[in-house]
Amino acid sequence: MHKVIFDTDPGVDDAMALLFLHRHPAIDLVGITTVFGNASVETTTRNALFLKRSWDIAAPVAKGIGETLDSERPHVGWPTSVHGDDGLGNIDVPSEIDLPLDPRPAHRFIIDTVRANPGEVTLVAVGRMTNLARALRDDPAIAALVKSVVIMGGAFDVPGNITPAAEANIHGDPEAADLVMTAPWPVTVIGLDVTMRTVMTRSMLSDIAERGGAPARLLCDISQFYVDFYEQHVEDGMVVHDSCACAYVVAPDLFRTRSGAIRVICGGIADGQTIQKPDGRLFPPNAWDGLPSQRACIGIDAGAVLSLIGETLANGR
Amino acid sequence: MHKVIFDTDPGVDDAMALLFLHRHPAIDLVGITTVFGNASVETTTRNALFLKRSWDIAAPVAKGIGETLDSERPHVGWPTSVHGDDGLGNIDVPSEIDLPLDPRPAHRFIIDTVRANPGEVTLVAVGRMTNLARALRDDPAIAALVKSVVIMGGAFDVPGNITPAAEANIHGDPEAADLVMTAPWPVTVIGLDVTMRTVMTRSMLSDIAERGGAPARLLCDISQFYVDFYEQHVEDGMVVHDSCACAYVVAPDLFRTRSGAIRVICGGIADGQTIQKPDGRLFPPNAWDGLPSQRACIGIDAGAVLSLIGETLANGR
Repeated sequence: MHKVIFDTDPGVDDAMALLFLHRHPAIDLVGITTVFGNASVETTTRNALFLKRSWDIAAPVAKGIGETLDSERPHVGWPTSVHGDDGLGNIDVPSEIDLPLDPRPAHRFIIDTVRANPGEVTLVAVGRMTNLARALRDDPAIAALVKSVVIMGGAFDVPGNITPAAEANIHGDPEAADLVMTAPWPVTVIGLDVTMRTVMTRSMLSDIAERGGAPARLLCDISQFYVDFYEQHVEDGMVVHDSCACAYVVAPDLFRTRSGAIRVICGGIADGQTIQKPDGRLFPPNAWDGLPSQRACIGIDAGAVLSLIGETLANGR
Repeated sequence: MHKVIFDTDPGVDDAMALLFLHRHPAIDLVGITTVFGNASVETTTRNALFLKRSWDIAAPVAKGIGETLDSERPHVGWPTSVHGDDGLGNIDVPSEIDLPLDPRPAHRFIIDTVRANPGEVTLVAVGRMTNLARALRDDPAIAALVKSVVIMGGAFDVPGNITPAAEANIHGDPEAADLVMTAPWPVTVIGLDVTMRTVMTRSMLSDIAERGGAPARLLCDISQFYVDFYEQHVEDGMVVHDSCACAYVVAPDLFRTRSGAIRVICGGIADGQTIQKPDGRLFPPNAWDGLPSQRACIGIDAGAVLSLIGETLANGR
């Protein structure tokens, strides 16, 4: 079993990833931590509670802090055209959910849970890297206690999506992402190189809704707005960014990775770009030297990953 | 016939490119302008004169200015481990060559030659972009009078060579390169994406030396040091970076290009990185908007390009 803390900003594809984690038999979801990104942290936290209640998820929800690691960074708007005004595809999420939050801020929840389960916790982070960076900053020793970190974010050998250089999750808090990528814990980065190739068609989504009961029907309803948005980018369907990171936890063999230190550009027109120095390549002295080698995902068996996601969502436990 | 000004920093692979331009029947080499990079501008100018004399090249040599467009940039050392202390593979180039230089600085030679041949001149630039940028800055109207610009430099979907982010020609004067890429003239950028795949083996080089007379034998002598250096990067032989740009002029069909605005990162750890916004991809407003679409080379028929180069070098006119 993989003990997972899911750090998330639901978010439509976050909702799918959450249901995947909830329903996969090899995942023990021990906590949900919220971060801003697809919407404000107030909205994403409300959405996390809504999904927890709708899907009867046991894991506690801990709310993150609503600003970037460098508080001087100007606020950018929320991508309402992708995820809707409510962050869940405009399905009329109730404005308040009558469920308690964990009393701790997200980064403290992460620290405590990692320390209580040394060597056992996998952090799956699919929003801004803010909570993970705050946890590292407050307690750097957790780096040695985390089993692994799996991130959805970045773009290595392909263009970004929020700018030609940068992917949105990393662009939304570059200083946090650089801290997370360069810390001495094992990070795997699942970026646009592979997620943009992993498109769940409308008919697959309908099939999941038919077979997966009320939870899957809710997921399908949530996803329609996002599918419509993605019509300008892909032929048909839903790019399942965040579920790719979750699939990696249980089926890493379906992915091809490249090892090497990873830095995040902070500032300028490439703000938020991820750049890897592939291991084995020789360069003069540079800003990647001496940093831990991490894994950037550069290949995926998209068909197999989509099957894994579809079967998990449709079949439940 | 293609009227070409060759902006160069000889440099070993520059020497090969120069002999290619001199010997190709469809090229009319109207000028050689020198720039720093593979060595100081004093050394590269001396080398250009040495090659002009050795190979009996009619085109005049005009010397560039020896500093970056932004004169505040710190000086970086010369890559003597790649091109030798003399910039031509340590073959004992005479310290002075008794041939006159064109009286004008390189950028003025470019301006005058372009204005005298409106719509006819192709600029092939294989060193720092300093001379082209100075020419543009002094006389922006030449952008509309140049037939095309072909650059060896940059790295788009692959790592750099001087840092994980940047290729050496662009890294050596990023402000100049950004000006050149964003100017309203048609630029094709031949970068590491294709040049690193275009490797002339030792046996091809020997064959050229045997068939191509004294000029080819000199080229082969010059190249040995560089071939030895590249042993750490490629299996066997010489990466013919600069000749690829020259081959593009006469055989563009052997290359696959991608269109889109190109920016160069100036400053920070990605200093000198080239980033393209591919045409047809949608992004929120960004620093690439409204700039001219240029061509980044992302594919090459390396075998055919090597044959073209080899036959041209061996056969002469």
